[in-house]
Amino acid sequence: MMEFTAAQIAEALQGKVEGDENVKVNNVAPIEQGKPGTLSFLSNPKYTEYIYGTEASIVIVNEDFKPEKPVKAALIKVPDAYQAFATLLTMYEQAKPVPEGIDSMSKIDETAKVGEKVFVDTYAVIGKNAKIGDRVQIHAQAYVGNNVTIGAGTVIYPGVKIYHDCVIGKQVTIHAGAVIGADGFGFAPKKGENYQKIPQIGNVVLEDHVEIGANTCIDRATMGSTIIREGVKLDNLIQVAHNVEIGHHTVMASQVGISGSTKIGKDCMFGGQVGLAGHINIGDNVKAGAQAGISGNIKDNQTVLGSPAISYIRERKAMAVYRNLPELWRKLNDLEQKINN
Amino acid sequence: MMEFTAAQIAEALQGKVEGDENVKVNNVAPIEQGKPGTLSFLSNPKYTEYIYGTEASIVIVNEDFKPEKPVKAALIKVPDAYQAFATLLTMYEQAKPVPEGIDSMSKIDETAKVGEKVFVDTYAVIGKNAKIGDRVQIHAQAYVGNNVTIGAGTVIYPGVKIYHDCVIGKQVTIHAGAVIGADGFGFAPKKGENYQKIPQIGNVVLEDHVEIGANTCIDRATMGSTIIREGVKLDNLIQVAHNVEIGHHTVMASQVGISGSTKIGKDCMFGGQVGLAGHINIGDNVKAGAQAGISGNIKDNQTVLGSPAISYIRERKAMAVYRNLPELWRKLNDLEQKINN
Amino acid sequence: MMEFTAAQIAEALQGKVEGDENVKVNNVAPIEQGKPGTLSFLSNPKYTEYIYGTEASIVIVNEDFKPEKPVKAALIKVPDAYQAFATLLTMYEQAKPVPEGIDSMSKIDETAKVGEKVFVDTYAVIGKNAKIGDRVQIHAQAYVGNNVTIGAGTVIYPGVKIYHDCVIGKQVTIHAGAVIGADGFGFAPKKGENYQKIPQIGNVVLEDHVEIGANTCIDRATMGSTIIREGVKLDNLIQVAHNVEIGHHTVMASQVGISGSTKIGKDCMFGGQVGLAGHINIGDNVKAGAQAGISGNIKDNQTVLGSPAISYIRERKAMAVYRNLPELWRKLNDLEQKINN
Repeated sequence: MMEFTAAQIAEALQGKVEGDENVKVNNVAPIEQGKPGTLSFLSNPKYTEYIYGTEASIVIVNEDFKPEKPVKAALIKVPDAYQAFATLLTMYEQAKPVPEGIDSMSKIDETAKVGEKVFVDTYAVIGKNAKIGDRVQIHAQAYVGNNVTIGAGTVIYPGVKIYHDCVIGKQVTIHAGAVIGADGFGFAPKKGENYQKIPQIGNVVLEDHVEIGANTCIDRATMGSTIIREGVKLDNLIQVAHNVEIGHHTVMASQVGISGSTKIGKDCMFGGQVGLAGHINIGDNVKAGAQAGISGNIKDNQTVLGSPAISYIRERKAMAVYRNLPELWRKLNDLEQKINN
Repeated sequence: MMEFTAAQIAEALQGKVEGDENVKVNNVAPIEQGKPGTLSFLSNPKYTEYIYGTEASIVIVNEDFKPEKPVKAALIKVPDAYQAFATLLTMYEQAKPVPEGIDSMSKIDETAKVGEKVFVDTYAVIGKNAKIGDRVQIHAQAYVGNNVTIGAGTVIYPGVKIYHDCVIGKQVTIHAGAVIGADGFGFAPKKGENYQKIPQIGNVVLEDHVEIGANTCIDRATMGSTIIREGVKLDNLIQVAHNVEIGHHTVMASQVGISGSTKIGKDCMFGGQVGLAGHINIGDNVKAGAQAGISGNIKDNQTVLGSPAISYIRERKAMAVYRNLPELWRKLNDLEQKINN
Repeated sequence: MMEFTAAQIAEALQGKVEGDENVKVNNVAPIEQGKPGTLSFLSNPKYTEYIYGTEASIVIVNEDFKPEKPVKAALIKVPDAYQAFATLLTMYEQAKPVPEGIDSMSKIDETAKVGEKVFVDTYAVIGKNAKIGDRVQIHAQAYVGNNVTIGAGTVIYPGVKIYHDCVIGKQVTIHAGAVIGADGFGFAPKKGENYQKIPQIGNVVLEDHVEIGANTCIDRATMGSTIIREGVKLDNLIQVAHNVEIGHHTVMASQVGISGSTKIGKDCMFGGQVGLAGHINIGDNVKAGAQAGISGNIKDNQTVLGSPAISYIRERKAMAVYRNLPELWRKLNDLEQKINN
């Protein structure tokens, strides 16, 4: 990393320096691990205490931050410290060289169409009639099945497996080990015999700007498409079953599981390990707390918690009583005795 | 897809047409997305409303289906619409060419025995003394360890990893990223030191007609075998620990976790994210609702729910009261006051 | 396996034979599956009943074990039967040949430094400036990114993906499909637009003697390091988010999920499917029961259960009442009626 002064960084972020404008940094660090020469930021109020002791030379803060004690670091005040820091990191990332070129130890079917400035790394496989857009990166040991389409600027990390016929948008990121387009889990019971497999002849569509975490699985539709809309962000180890649809800009933490044919609206936020039943409808802007178990439809703008999930407020109240159930039980028995005597 | 008339499809399914026998379809679609020229089916009553508005040209229905409003589509009546549709899709799938041949960029150890009409795709690896049955498909970048046996007709999708000594039956399907035969999680505590690893010298046995979902993990036994019996179907991201046994035709939805040495009977059905403790016995035909936490033995034919799981009926009743705990608490306090005053 | 007498095994374990010193075994088996010629062990009291019927020729038992009925097998008495058995299995494992050598169909960047007696199997990839210690095993189709360091004696199983800049200690084991160093899940919301990705420029550090299960994901830090301390053992399908730290010798069963920036102490034990919120602190020697949902800080030496997790004792009591909520509800209503009439 190059060296920058507080003044230079403030200029790039259109922020205001408080403290030594000329102090220099050449690296970044979390605020609680800041060392001289590092740049940090403060956004989560939980970490406010660290700013008074941090050794970081510069800290980016929200413009409404007012220190209650002396701060050694130079401060750069901006409207949104988290976003400003993200912008800086992005500038840093974008300065890195972008990999390009086809490794001789990769296998691209001769019928595939490959755009310009594409990167295909060692032992990657691209199937028949696949269409790979410009500047796509297919990292080592990734697999792109027959007839798959991948839009411009998308990054497929090592070992990702994309089954045949899936459609991946532009500027999508798929992390290592994710599996896109494996068969949905469909079997028709047959008395006293093996289940009859329902062939899964649909596909998966990931729209633009989607990010898929490591080892996450998105199953192909029985018929039609499993659809992940623009800007959706899925963390690691998530299960998306066949014929699910996830609306624009919805984000889900890791280990969420969504059963078949469930439709989820836009701008939703799900905590880790949330589970959703099949064939239900979740509205827009729904929030679900970690480990919630959602078994029925949910309307727009609801926040739910618990398993089975109910409204957040109600669940919080029920939880509070739950902890005191032994006491409640005792009270009730006392009362009963009193009355019956 | 070729074009078929309603009469032709009815004949193949031994069903009865109601409506235009000559209407043609050349594709399939879910009923709520049906378009002219597509074939659909109605089985789940939740979707009945869609039949009155669907643009699908033909819909396969159960023979006892009686429309309450006019239906535009031609109907094909059969005893079981879901199974009939599955049969059609299977016929379609079976018409596809089956991949065959050994890619020059795969690595098959010279001591391995490979059957007839086998498919081994690019960058796949087959280890020493492995035995690969006829018509087995080993897709790209899959790994078959030393001494592994794979029965005829089995399909190993891209990137599957099968550790040494495992035994895979006939007509088994293993989806991308699944790991068969990694070490069970066994460590002996040693005070004030690193845990002592218990070597896992057993294997995994998958019997015939088993299907394993993407990124599911089945650990090898400490000694003996982790056994998945005939016809078991496991969804994605499931954890099966060492020395587990899963009985015939049991099915599990995604993200189920089974701890070590637990035995599960036949014909069980587990919802998503169910967890099972170790060293317990689950009977035949047991059903567990999503997110259940099973901590003890369960007898045949039980349906359980909740964490810790109890009988479904009891859990449903407890859940109903749980939601009203704040009210219950209030009531109790009111009563107490009344009595004490 | 070679053949050994009870006397020979007892000598190796410094144990004492009760029964026929000359009986021979040539294999091992779980006690409930013991056959003539096999060696087994009894440690978990749940399995005590099997010792009276087992056909195993020798059983290793704790020295305080007193049979209540005649036992056919020869017994070898040792202070800790589980550990003694582990020692035997380890001796057996260590007698196996260790793989060594570089497969011609692997790709090692010319700038990488590779130690002595290293094993690099088919289709494995080792990136630029990677440093691979002595006796490291990199199995088939594994991926070691640029600038990764791997300490001596570490085993990387097939298909593991290690992103750039990560640091892996000595004697570490990483099972198939695990992903080390994928991007942490960090996005800054932007109203009405796509989320802004926070580049994740940190890394992952696995210290010595760590074991990572199949398909487990450990994300790289936003800045700094996600750190897994010496001797930590993680089972399969676990999620470790960015900037998490897990203390020495902590063990976690499968499908645990840990949110970002959470710090976990040493010697903790977490059951399967436990979830932890982000930005919290868990003390040393904390135990969490399966499926616990930990939403806040926990002090040293606590045992917790439930979701949200509370003290084990309190949760057990609350659970007991929970099951009887319908009865409690009825009682309360009865009382109410009595009083109001």
